[in-house]
Amino acid sequence: MTKNSLGREIPDQFCGRPLRPYQDPFSFRPTGLTAPRPLRRVNPGQNKVLGSLREAIEASGLRNGMTIGTHHHLRNGDRVLNAVVHEIATMGLRDITIAGSSVHPVHEALIPYIREGVITRIESGVNGPISRMVSSGELDVPIITRTHGGRARAMMTGEIKVDVAFVAAPTCDAYGNICASKGPSACGVVGYAHSDADYAGCVVAVTDNLVPYPAYPISIPQTKVDYVVLVASLGDPAQIVSTTTRVTTDPIGLQIAKYAAAVIEASGLLKTGFSFQTGAGGTSLAVAANVRDMMRSRAITGSFGAGGITGYFVEMLEEGLLEALFDVQSFDLQAVESAGRNEAHLEMSADMYANPFNAGCVVNQLDCVVLGAREVDVDFNVNVNTESDGRLNGNTGGHADTAAGAKLTIVVAPSIRARLPIVRDAVTTISTPGATVDAVVTERGVALNTKYQGMAQDLARRGIPVKPIEQLKDEIYAITGVPRPIEFTDKIVGLIEYRDGSITDVIRQVKS
Amino acid sequence: MTKNSLGREIPDQFCGRPLRPYQDPFSFRPTGLTAPRPLRRVNPGQNKVLGSLREAIEASGLRNGMTIGTHHHLRNGDRVLNAVVHEIATMGLRDITIAGSSVHPVHEALIPYIREGVITRIESGVNGPISRMVSSGELDVPIITRTHGGRARAMMTGEIKVDVAFVAAPTCDAYGNICASKGPSACGVVGYAHSDADYAGCVVAVTDNLVPYPAYPISIPQTKVDYVVLVASLGDPAQIVSTTTRVTTDPIGLQIAKYAAAVIEASGLLKTGFSFQTGAGGTSLAVAANVRDMMRSRAITGSFGAGGITGYFVEMLEEGLLEALFDVQSFDLQAVESAGRNEAHLEMSADMYANPFNAGCVVNQLDCVVLGAREVDVDFNVNVNTESDGRLNGNTGGHADTAAGAKLTIVVAPSIRARLPIVRDAVTTISTPGATVDAVVTERGVALNTKYQGMAQDLARRGIPVKPIEQLKDEIYAITGVPRPIEFTDKIVGLIEYRDGSITDVIRQVKS
Repeated sequence: MTKNSLGREIPDQFCGRPLRPYQDPFSFRPTGLTAPRPLRRVNPGQNKVLGSLREAIEASGLRNGMTIGTHHHLRNGDRVLNAVVHEIATMGLRDITIAGSSVHPVHEALIPYIREGVITRIESGVNGPISRMVSSGELDVPIITRTHGGRARAMMTGEIKVDVAFVAAPTCDAYGNICASKGPSACGVVGYAHSDADYAGCVVAVTDNLVPYPAYPISIPQTKVDYVVLVASLGDPAQIVSTTTRVTTDPIGLQIAKYAAAVIEASGLLKTGFSFQTGAGGTSLAVAANVRDMMRSRAITGSFGAGGITGYFVEMLEEGLLEALFDVQSFDLQAVESAGRNEAHLEMSADMYANPFNAGCVVNQLDCVVLGAREVDVDFNVNVNTESDGRLNGNTGGHADTAAGAKLTIVVAPSIRARLPIVRDAVTTISTPGATVDAVVTERGVALNTKYQGMAQDLARRGIPVKPIEQLKDEIYAITGVPRPIEFTDKIVGLIEYRDGSITDVIRQVKS
Repeated sequence: MTKNSLGREIPDQFCGRPLRPYQDPFSFRPTGLTAPRPLRRVNPGQNKVLGSLREAIEASGLRNGMTIGTHHHLRNGDRVLNAVVHEIATMGLRDITIAGSSVHPVHEALIPYIREGVITRIESGVNGPISRMVSSGELDVPIITRTHGGRARAMMTGEIKVDVAFVAAPTCDAYGNICASKGPSACGVVGYAHSDADYAGCVVAVTDNLVPYPAYPISIPQTKVDYVVLVASLGDPAQIVSTTTRVTTDPIGLQIAKYAAAVIEASGLLKTGFSFQTGAGGTSLAVAANVRDMMRSRAITGSFGAGGITGYFVEMLEEGLLEALFDVQSFDLQAVESAGRNEAHLEMSADMYANPFNAGCVVNQLDCVVLGAREVDVDFNVNVNTESDGRLNGNTGGHADTAAGAKLTIVVAPSIRARLPIVRDAVTTISTPGATVDAVVTERGVALNTKYQGMAQDLARRGIPVKPIEQLKDEIYAITGVPRPIEFTDKIVGLIEYRDGSITDVIRQVKS
């Protein structure tokens, strides 16, 4: 065990992999080369279309002990990962690693296959029953949680080697051109799948909408797709994208949004060329609504919106308040529809979004990001991975990536949830290091980290309560009491990997 | 020396590189992995914009003995390659290889630098004075001519290792997003530069149109561009693209086009989903005009047009006769303008166009390609590299790639040029092997290769003179006489590399 710079105990290795403890957000410099993949040869007349997932798995050469990749653009509507694993199990394969971009509650169907040893490792963030059961010791499978940029990085460096990627393709032609913005399972873009297409040993496009050649706009080109499989349905369209994403109407959320907007205003960043990202949560969208109003009233034209894209950002684009959108994942129907139609709505790979080891990712260009939190601590560290009972249930997503990239990183959260303090002495799990968080905004006040402490007076003049984060925490504790520590066993069941591959924290099994 | 399967003597090695003699178009299967490139790390706040080409060359780490890459989308209007080499020379660097996609007549400015040993190797097709002088022994620099797909392949396999790519960027932002369809030097697309961006050790975008972030549509993304340099001008717009490309009015050309159209009709390929490529020459465009008329009159909707795109294909797209265009290089202003506007006008990398070692290139999907020729022989071999005096002066381009890919490959040429026979016993240089050529069409008749000999009767019924190629040659020789053999020395000054990396022919110095 070694303590990383955040004070967390990191084992020397995990499941045979030597670990590098987190040091700081920026100084680690990779050496070596990008991961290569096998050369192919495809001659004219060769057919890529196979009759079933089974045929594709056979053709791919998948064997015991190998790794599969999937993407989560179909979110909780996805049927592809379950179908693939079911087929793998039926074929008698075992000891498979899932290295997808996320596992969702719908994938609880995989639980029997984990118990049977078909799936023995998950290199993916996990939302839902699987990660909660792993935390409680009911299920035994190690989980490596990465950021979106970190997954792209790990595929680029070869730390993740996907042997066979199964790419859910909302529209596809027989030669493998994948179009994400059309078809009954349209999801707008497939930003997380680009790294699979670039680095996987074999790429299988799974589609429910096989169209005449060429399918376009092309999200992933034929040159990277080995096989095409037509299935009845990729998933449940009602669960693939939200119908709409909406600004909160909750008074606490609106208060937080008002404070956050004031922080953005006071930062001086809100001027021509402003670039901006928020999550799809109601409070984050309320911040976006305030920003939009300020941009309108001052006739400011921003540069771009990025990340998971909502209808809210589509409207800002169409209104001329933003010049472009970089979309790694379309969050609602309005975003899906825009992705297929508006040339300023750009599909962005997870690599382009957030990989710290390419020639420069989009998060590096962000002026401001507004992020949520499950917990924040007095060092500004943020937890988005574990719940209040200490169980793992969540991806890091782009949280740590955007926090590192943006000039101004604002974390918004209510001060209390379910009677528990959200600002506390120490977060249960460090997803995003405090060194990359500039402001914590609650309805009880705003805490500023070092870089932006000069804003305090300006904010106070605007009537915003600015408090040292210790004081904010004390005020909250005065109401909630000091939170009871969660008891963990010594067993490490998962890792929280930072975007550069170092380890910010581990997940320990909770005591029952 | 070993004779390849085409009967050409291939040395065991050339300039230290072991050679593999050409065997056949399809059976060579590569082993091993794609070429990796060094990992980078770019943190927020790092600036990519440098003040001059010199600063960029210094920052790139270019040293004696290294290789630079450039693209030829600015054609004979390009000023970038000359400026880069001038700067390299000024800095005192020597022994540099140019591994570009093509060298043009405008690059005769490089001749002094070749004489001085600044440039000591050219891994690129060469049009213009340099290759002619190399052929005559006036200039000493080995020239390796590849197909467009072959260059992409060689970069993918690592056979070409570009240390620093200088990418002429008609529009670029400060973070390196390159847009080819806008700006004073707009060239539509930069399909040949994609492999440089993917595989070069360092990528420098050279632009005369630096725009606010983000530049889009994105031809090459920021994630692959290390430095950005602003220069006064990339080149002479009048020479970058033709104003228009036009159908021939020459009666021989029109006769050839009529015969070629009949061959296409007789092949049975001209039906819904037809896909088609021609060059930009007047006769090829006349074939396209005939095809268009047939499609109109039969209400046929084709699939795609590909390759270097002309206004002619843009019109077919806009008329609804084609569903999409795959554009690796925009040939005229109409194509440039369409590339930036029409979402069905797709930018295509040379890799996607024609690399035989990816998961399937676009030429594999071609129904028909119409190609020109300098010479054709009785084995249907085609020469597009050397002139009638035996001197090297020309790229292979996509000639051998499309011939290998298309279901029907038609070579159109006048039977006689400048009193010399174009169909002959043996071509001077084998650019494209006869095994991939299906029909030779001259104004004196049509010769069919094995695969399509069943069409002969049908064509005869349509009044098209179909002849064995030996007979066609004899008829032409009866007029021109047997051509006098060109005399060569034993000195090999260049290679003609096939798309799979084997050698179809060598270029020998001509006897003075």
